[in-house]
Amino acid sequence: MINAGIIGATGYTGAELVRILSGHPDVKLSAITSRQYANTDFAEIYPAMKSIVDLECEEYSLKTFAHKVDIAFTALPHKLPMKFVPDLLDSGLKIVDLSADFRFKNISTYEAYYQPHSAGRLSEKSVYGLCEVNFDCIKDAELVGNPGCYPTSVLLPLVPLIKNRLINFNSIIADSKSGVSGAGRSISLATQFCEVNEAFKAYKIASHRHTPEMEEVLSIEAGESIQLTFVPHLIPVTRGMLTTIYARLEQTIKEKDIRSCISDYYSSSPFVRIYPENMLPDIAYVKGTNFCDIGIKTEEKTGRLILISAIDNLVKGAAGQAVQNMNIMMGLDETSGLRNIPFPV
Amino acid sequence: MINAGIIGATGYTGAELVRILSGHPDVKLSAITSRQYANTDFAEIYPAMKSIVDLECEEYSLKTFAHKVDIAFTALPHKLPMKFVPDLLDSGLKIVDLSADFRFKNISTYEAYYQPHSAGRLSEKSVYGLCEVNFDCIKDAELVGNPGCYPTSVLLPLVPLIKNRLINFNSIIADSKSGVSGAGRSISLATQFCEVNEAFKAYKIASHRHTPEMEEVLSIEAGESIQLTFVPHLIPVTRGMLTTIYARLEQTIKEKDIRSCISDYYSSSPFVRIYPENMLPDIAYVKGTNFCDIGIKTEEKTGRLILISAIDNLVKGAAGQAVQNMNIMMGLDETSGLRNIPFPV
Amino acid sequence: MINAGIIGATGYTGAELVRILSGHPDVKLSAITSRQYANTDFAEIYPAMKSIVDLECEEYSLKTFAHKVDIAFTALPHKLPMKFVPDLLDSGLKIVDLSADFRFKNISTYEAYYQPHSAGRLSEKSVYGLCEVNFDCIKDAELVGNPGCYPTSVLLPLVPLIKNRLINFNSIIADSKSGVSGAGRSISLATQFCEVNEAFKAYKIASHRHTPEMEEVLSIEAGESIQLTFVPHLIPVTRGMLTTIYARLEQTIKEKDIRSCISDYYSSSPFVRIYPENMLPDIAYVKGTNFCDIGIKTEEKTGRLILISAIDNLVKGAAGQAVQNMNIMMGLDETSGLRNIPFPV
Amino acid sequence: MINAGIIGATGYTGAELVRILSGHPDVKLSAITSRQYANTDFAEIYPAMKSIVDLECEEYSLKTFAHKVDIAFTALPHKLPMKFVPDLLDSGLKIVDLSADFRFKNISTYEAYYQPHSAGRLSEKSVYGLCEVNFDCIKDAELVGNPGCYPTSVLLPLVPLIKNRLINFNSIIADSKSGVSGAGRSISLATQFCEVNEAFKAYKIASHRHTPEMEEVLSIEAGESIQLTFVPHLIPVTRGMLTTIYARLEQTIKEKDIRSCISDYYSSSPFVRIYPENMLPDIAYVKGTNFCDIGIKTEEKTGRLILISAIDNLVKGAAGQAVQNMNIMMGLDETSGLRNIPFPV
Repeated sequence: MINAGIIGATGYTGAELVRILSGHPDVKLSAITSRQYANTDFAEIYPAMKSIVDLECEEYSLKTFAHKVDIAFTALPHKLPMKFVPDLLDSGLKIVDLSADFRFKNISTYEAYYQPHSAGRLSEKSVYGLCEVNFDCIKDAELVGNPGCYPTSVLLPLVPLIKNRLINFNSIIADSKSGVSGAGRSISLATQFCEVNEAFKAYKIASHRHTPEMEEVLSIEAGESIQLTFVPHLIPVTRGMLTTIYARLEQTIKEKDIRSCISDYYSSSPFVRIYPENMLPDIAYVKGTNFCDIGIKTEEKTGRLILISAIDNLVKGAAGQAVQNMNIMMGLDETSGLRNIPFPV
Repeated sequence: MINAGIIGATGYTGAELVRILSGHPDVKLSAITSRQYANTDFAEIYPAMKSIVDLECEEYSLKTFAHKVDIAFTALPHKLPMKFVPDLLDSGLKIVDLSADFRFKNISTYEAYYQPHSAGRLSEKSVYGLCEVNFDCIKDAELVGNPGCYPTSVLLPLVPLIKNRLINFNSIIADSKSGVSGAGRSISLATQFCEVNEAFKAYKIASHRHTPEMEEVLSIEAGESIQLTFVPHLIPVTRGMLTTIYARLEQTIKEKDIRSCISDYYSSSPFVRIYPENMLPDIAYVKGTNFCDIGIKTEEKTGRLILISAIDNLVKGAAGQAVQNMNIMMGLDETSGLRNIPFPV
Repeated sequence: MINAGIIGATGYTGAELVRILSGHPDVKLSAITSRQYANTDFAEIYPAMKSIVDLECEEYSLKTFAHKVDIAFTALPHKLPMKFVPDLLDSGLKIVDLSADFRFKNISTYEAYYQPHSAGRLSEKSVYGLCEVNFDCIKDAELVGNPGCYPTSVLLPLVPLIKNRLINFNSIIADSKSGVSGAGRSISLATQFCEVNEAFKAYKIASHRHTPEMEEVLSIEAGESIQLTFVPHLIPVTRGMLTTIYARLEQTIKEKDIRSCISDYYSSSPFVRIYPENMLPDIAYVKGTNFCDIGIKTEEKTGRLILISAIDNLVKGAAGQAVQNMNIMMGLDETSGLRNIPFPV
Repeated sequence: MINAGIIGATGYTGAELVRILSGHPDVKLSAITSRQYANTDFAEIYPAMKSIVDLECEEYSLKTFAHKVDIAFTALPHKLPMKFVPDLLDSGLKIVDLSADFRFKNISTYEAYYQPHSAGRLSEKSVYGLCEVNFDCIKDAELVGNPGCYPTSVLLPLVPLIKNRLINFNSIIADSKSGVSGAGRSISLATQFCEVNEAFKAYKIASHRHTPEMEEVLSIEAGESIQLTFVPHLIPVTRGMLTTIYARLEQTIKEKDIRSCISDYYSSSPFVRIYPENMLPDIAYVKGTNFCDIGIKTEEKTGRLILISAIDNLVKGAAGQAVQNMNIMMGLDETSGLRNIPFPV
C-alpha cells in the first residue's frame, strides 16, 4: 500500500484527487493539507464525501507531512509549489505537481509567462507528465510536472502527427472549449452562476499562458520550433473540455492515414480512444473518466485536417492524469484507481 | 460469479444498470436485450461505453436469455414485465423488476392507476424492494418489485416516523423535485432541451401514480390507512431528486427525537446518511451514488416537521437500488458494486 | 417626461431597473449611482447595454441627485436605504425602495429579523408596494417599500383567499423555488457556477427573513395573526420563481370557487394571469415579464388546496414591480414600460 | 399599419416571429397558420403568450391568407416554401422566406445540398436578405431569402474584409457554436434535455449545408471563388451563436486597420456593434436582440486574424433579421419593432 498525500486538497483539483485516491485500490490517502480549512473535516467542506472520506485537513508542515507519505501531490496555485517541492524531494518523496511550476524545460519561457522561478534548476530533473508521450521518462521520475488541461487536449491528438510530419507545422490552430471547473474554486464575478449560465464567450484570445506550454512540447517532438494559434472559450457546464484543431495536411495524406498514425501511436495507451469514421467525441462521453477521445476528419476541398479531442478537464486534464503519473512512477498498473465508468447520461 | 442479464438495456434505467453491473466485482453481465436496438453494439448506442462494455443487444428470447443468466433485471415500460416475468420465474431465475408491475400488494390499486394486471397472483410472491425497510423479506425473495424513484425519496425519511407514530398521519405533504432523466429516453416535446432548460414547473399535481404506491407502503407500516398530498416538479438537471416533506409533529416531540428515531432505524443501513443540525442535503452530494441523504428541521411556532431527502433518481431511485436488491437476494455484501464516490463538483 | 434615478444601479436588481426604465416611454433615466463603479460607463459594466444605455455611474451626492430626478429607486442592501431615504423625501422626491427597510408596519418585527432601524418613524408613511393589493394607497404614497420576491409569489395567490376566508389560517405551507439571480451580484462560493449547476437544495428552512414579511401582510388582510411555514429552494436557472402553496380548504369549497375568488379579486389587474383547469404555470412563461401566473388545484381526498404561482424574481419580484409602483404613484398607465413580450423559448 | 402573416407559426422560428411582430408598432399580425395546430389558439401552444397574443392558428389557404396580409413570412422546412411562394407572389404579397429555398443564386448548388428546386427561376428575383450587406437590393425586393443563422454570424464579420482584400482568401476557418433552439421544435433524441445538458460536441464537420451558402456570398463579394472550412458545435444553452473565425492577414495589416475597416463598413448599421480592443462578445450580451456583436484580435507571431461574432440565433439569425428585412422592404425604420433591450443577466 502506497501512502499518498495532497498539499492543497480543498480546491476543485485537490478535491478531485481526494475522490480518485479514496477509491484507489493500491493507495492509502494519508494526509491532506489546506491553508484555508486547517483542522476541518474534509467531509464538512465537501458534504458529498460524508461517510466516505474520514480525514481532517492539516496545516502543512514538512516534517509531519513527509513522515506520513511516500508520494505527494501539490495542487496549489502557481508559484507556491516551487517553494515546497525542493524540501519534499530532499525528504525522499516523489512528487506530482499540478501547477505550471515544473512543466517547462525552458525556464525563461516560464518566467516570461508566469513569474521568476526560485527552483528553476529542478527543470532538468522534472519530467513533463503527458503520460502517453513521456511514459518511459515518467517511470524513473522523482518529480513530474503534470500537464495543463488545455495542453493535454491539444497535444494528445497532435503529437503523433507532428512526430510523423503529416501536417504543416505553421498551420496549427486550436479552438478549445472548457467547462467552468477549470477556473477552480476561488470565487470571482466571472464564474458566478448568473454570469456563466446561458452564456458563451472566448477569453484570453491568443494570449493564454497554456500556449507556450503547448509550443514547447510540440517543438521538442518536431525537433524544430512550432508556434500555434490558441483560443479558449468557456462552456456553461461544470466538467469537460473539447478542442477542435485545424491544420493543413501535407500532400497525399488521407483520413485513414491520419487515423492509422494516431491509432498506432496509442496502441498500448488504455486511456486514448480513437473514433472511427463518422463518429465524434462529446465531453459527455468522458465525464468523470481519464479518457481522451479523439475524432478525425479531413476536408478535401481545402486540404485541411480537423481533429476533435474531448477530456474531463478535472480528470485527464488534472487529477486523473496526476494519478496516472503516480501509477507509472510507482510501478503500478497505469489504470489502477482510474477505471471509473462514465454515466450513460 | 453471478450471471446477470438486463431485459430492456437501452433506456436510461437499463443503461444505468449496465454502468453499475459492468463495474460490479461479483457479477458478470452476460446478456442485454433491446427491441429497438437488437444486434447493435451497446457502445454504439452509448459511445461513452466504448472500450468498457463489449456486449451486443439481443432480441429477447426466453430460452437463450434464461440459459445465460441467474438473475434478470426487467427495465421495461409498465405492462410488459407482467408478460415476461412468469416464464422467467418458471425457468428458475430471480428477478428484479424496475416497473410498477410488481410493486403493489393490492392489485386493484394497481389496476386503478395503471391497467389490468395479467399476473396479479404474483403479488403474493413479490416483495417491495425498499431495501432498508424490507431487507429480511428481500433476502428470501425470488421476485422483487423495485420501488419508484419518488416513493423511495418519500418513504425512506417517513417510515421510521410512521412506525414510531411521531407525526400526525393526516398531515403529510410531499413536495418533490426531479431531474429530467426520470422521464426516460423516449423522445417527447416536454423533455426537449429548449422546453426544460431555464424552466421549472409542477406537473401531475395530486394525480401522479406514484402516490398510491407511497400510500400503500405507509399504510402497511402504520397499520392503518394513510393518505398524503404529493406534488412533483421538474428541475432542469439530468440527475437528482429532492423531496421536501411537511408533517405535523405529535406533541412534545423535539428535533433531536426525530433525528434519533431516523438514525436508530437506519443504524445498519450504509446508504442512508442522516444530516446533523444545520446541514442540508443537495442533489449534487448524491449524484452517481446509491445514497439517500436526509435533513431534519422542526418549526416550533407551527408544530411542523420538515424533512429533506435527496437521491440520484437513476441510482437509489432505480438502477442502484435494483442492484442493492440483487446483492441482498444473492447473499452478497449489500454495497457490492455500489461504492461509487461522488464528484466534489 | 418623468425623471427617474437609481441609487445602486449595478447590482442585478439595479441593472434590471436600468433595462426597464431605458425602454419606458414616459420616463427619462437621468441619474444612476454606484459606489463600486463610480465614474464608469454603465455599458462597460454591462456590455449588453452598449449602444443602448449611455449613462455613467455617479458617486451618490444628495444635492446632485435630487436636482436631477423626480423619483428615486433605491436598490441597495438592507440598512443603507434607511440612511438615504429621509433626506431624499425632504428634498421632495418620491421613492420606491427595493430593500426590506420600508416594508414593515411593525418595526420591532423588522428589527428582530434585520437590524436596528434608524428611520422607523417612516413606517407610518411608507406603503407596502404589492401593487394589486395596495393599489389605492400606492397612488398617494411618497415612499413605497417594494415587496420581496418570495412574498410577492406567496401573497398574490393567497390574499384573495385569506380575505374571503376560504382556507384554514393555520394550515398554510409555502414551498418556494428561486433562480440564482435572487442572490444578487455579490460574489460568494454558494453562487459560483460549479456549486449551483446540476444542484438543487433547500436553504434557510423555516428561518428565511421573508417569512415575517409574508406573515405581517397576511395577518393584516385576515384581521388576525397568521403564521405559515416557508421553505425556499435554489433552482439552477438565472431567473424565475415558482411557489407551491398548500392549505386546508374550509368545508364545501370547490376548485371553481377558488378560481372565481382569485379571478374576481384580480379582474382589473393586468399582470395577474389565472390559469384554467388542467393548465399549470412554468417560470419559463413569465421570464422577462411582470406577470404573476397562478395555477389552482384542489385535492378532494385530503381536503387540501394547492396553488402554484410563477414570477420572474427580477421583474415582478423586484424591478418590474418597482416600476409598476412608480407608474401608479406618478399617475401613469400601470403597464407602461412593462409590456415586454416573453420568449417562446 | 401593415398586415403581416406567418405561414408556419408554431415552430421556434415562427413563434419568435409572433413574439416580435406582436410588439411591432407598425404592424398588425393578421394571420398565422399551422398544419399541426390548425384551429388551436396560439396561446394554448405557447402559454407564455396568454393575454398577449389572441390569434388562432389557421389551416393554410392561399385565398384566405392572401386576402388578409400584405407581407408573408414563410417559416417552414426547406422544400415547402418553393411550393407556396410562387402563388403568394402572384397574389401581390411580398415575402420573406426563412428557409434555404430562396437564398441561392446558383440553383445547382442548392440542388446539390438540398433537393431539386421546383421554383428555381425565382432565384433571379429573390434577394439574399443579409440586411447590412444587401440593403439597397432588399429595399426593392418582393422576395427575400432570409439568411441562415450560421451564415449570418460568419458573413457579417468577414464581408468588409473580403471586399477590401485584407485577408488571404484561402485561409478562412469558421468555428461556430450554436444554442439548441437552432435545431427547431421538432422532437428528436439528439435534442432531448439529457442528451444535450452538460454535453458539448461538434457535428456535421466540414459537411454542414450552410457552408455553400457562406461560400456563395463570400465569392460574390470577392469577385472570385472562395472556399472555407466550417465546423459547427452545439452549446447547452437555448439561444445564442458565437463564431470564432481564423484567417491569415495580408501583409502589413494591423488590428486597428481591421477594426476601422469593419467599423466603416457598418457605420450606418444600427445592429452591428464593433467591440473595442480588449473587449469580447458573449452570446449573453445579444440574447433576445437583433444585434451582431464583433470582436477583433490579431496575432503577430502567426500573422493571423481572429474574429468573434455573437448573435441570437433566433433573432438576428432568423426571425429578427426577417423582420428587419420586412422593415426595409416596406420602407419602415430598419429598427422598428426590434429595439428589445437585452437582460443584464
